[in-house]
Amino acid sequence: MKDSERPLILISNDDGIEAAGILSLASALDAVAEVIIVAPLHEMSAVGHAITMRDPVRARPWPFRGPSGQLTAFAVSGTPADCVKLALDKLVPRKPDLVVSGINHGPNTAVNVIYSGTVSAATEASILGIPAVAFSHCRWGGGDFEASGRVARQIVENVLKQAPPPGILLNVNIPDLPIEKIKGCLITRQAQARWEEQFAERLDPFDKPYYWLSGTFVNMDKGENTDLWAVENGWVSITPILHDLTAYRVMDELSLRDWNIDSIN
Amino acid sequence: MKDSERPLILISNDDGIEAAGILSLASALDAVAEVIIVAPLHEMSAVGHAITMRDPVRARPWPFRGPSGQLTAFAVSGTPADCVKLALDKLVPRKPDLVVSGINHGPNTAVNVIYSGTVSAATEASILGIPAVAFSHCRWGGGDFEASGRVARQIVENVLKQAPPPGILLNVNIPDLPIEKIKGCLITRQAQARWEEQFAERLDPFDKPYYWLSGTFVNMDKGENTDLWAVENGWVSITPILHDLTAYRVMDELSLRDWNIDSIN
Repeated sequence: MKDSERPLILISNDDGIEAAGILSLASALDAVAEVIIVAPLHEMSAVGHAITMRDPVRARPWPFRGPSGQLTAFAVSGTPADCVKLALDKLVPRKPDLVVSGINHGPNTAVNVIYSGTVSAATEASILGIPAVAFSHCRWGGGDFEASGRVARQIVENVLKQAPPPGILLNVNIPDLPIEKIKGCLITRQAQARWEEQFAERLDPFDKPYYWLSGTFVNMDKGENTDLWAVENGWVSITPILHDLTAYRVMDELSLRDWNIDSIN
Repeated sequence: MKDSERPLILISNDDGIEAAGILSLASALDAVAEVIIVAPLHEMSAVGHAITMRDPVRARPWPFRGPSGQLTAFAVSGTPADCVKLALDKLVPRKPDLVVSGINHGPNTAVNVIYSGTVSAATEASILGIPAVAFSHCRWGGGDFEASGRVARQIVENVLKQAPPPGILLNVNIPDLPIEKIKGCLITRQAQARWEEQFAERLDPFDKPYYWLSGTFVNMDKGENTDLWAVENGWVSITPILHDLTAYRVMDELSLRDWNIDSIN
């Protein structure tokens, strides 16, 4: 099959183009599609949906070697969302069939979705009308990406056959287990959880104070259909997410209130 | 009334502590509450929900003058989400009754909600269990913040009496109109819209290429209950939003698919 007849998958991440996770993802997907990698030059974790507007961004061809040889790749001096925007406007040979982000070195479950650069790359694609999946491996700093790569390939093949409904992307979290221990896939919801901050407060060498973010992750959600529950119990978690943040269920209730703006005239 | 008996409002933004919008907001709210301002030292537009983990952040007391004199304020070397996290952990005298962000210099309607640092400050508060409102003035670069300040005060007084349901924050967009032309408040949903990118491609003085993000805002949503429709038609738009991104309505449909992970064992 010629490359132009194969599906095209754009791959990005937030751990940077040299991360083990993106190499594993690209290697796994190279077998099922033409891939192009456009990823941040440097690690961009926890940048959320940041985009670069005040400064220019650069893209340079990158010697990205997969198992079958050199893959088309660019390293970008920006955020994950920048990578997807720039790739779609300037770098891809044609409109991709799918945008895939990851494999993230650590979970993007619960509230971490909000902070995640990995998820934001996929969200950006979804906003722009392209099916998208974010993959994360649930161990901080990494783990067995070979198993995660195989899971990712399986899910990508499924999504290439049938995309999620328009405007909805998939946030996939893969447990840190040998592949034979993984029970299968569960469709989940985002768990209610949060980080409780405890900033470290220190003095610099000039006796000036500084703060360093640290915190404790608190799961307030005992549900058995959450992303957290799934990965803690040996399942691959697939959470359908969207970028429309409207809380539809309270619109009527809020509409009944007297907002009383007339009185300020 | 002593300060300790008044409600406490934490104020942040993404345009930076010296922006006209935050001065207008703090000035308007100083009359109804004790206020504390914790805002980025520099402009942080379009940072989304970025947080600073790899580097320390600094906070320094800031000479913030409102109409009634000096207000308690700190300038922080981080993002809007950092400001709220750090303020709540280290800087506020007690748990605030409300966190308010803005007034943003430009709209945060439709997909801009995703990119907005202003909204992320309010979202962070909501994640941490504190009622929150984000305010934006719908004119890029500014406008008549005195009118916006009056609208903000009215809405804040309303929210202090009755907070939004837990986990839901209000994203308020104020049209760029004289106050007597504002029709009132509408409860809205986030419009379906997107930016279509056209990166400018240029050469630097060393003949190396660079890209600069620019684009056209495309509204694909003809609904008359959207944030965009409201502000274009003279209404203050109040959109209830949440940080649970789960697309609940497709969970059942996706659960019926055969995800076929067993076959890779």
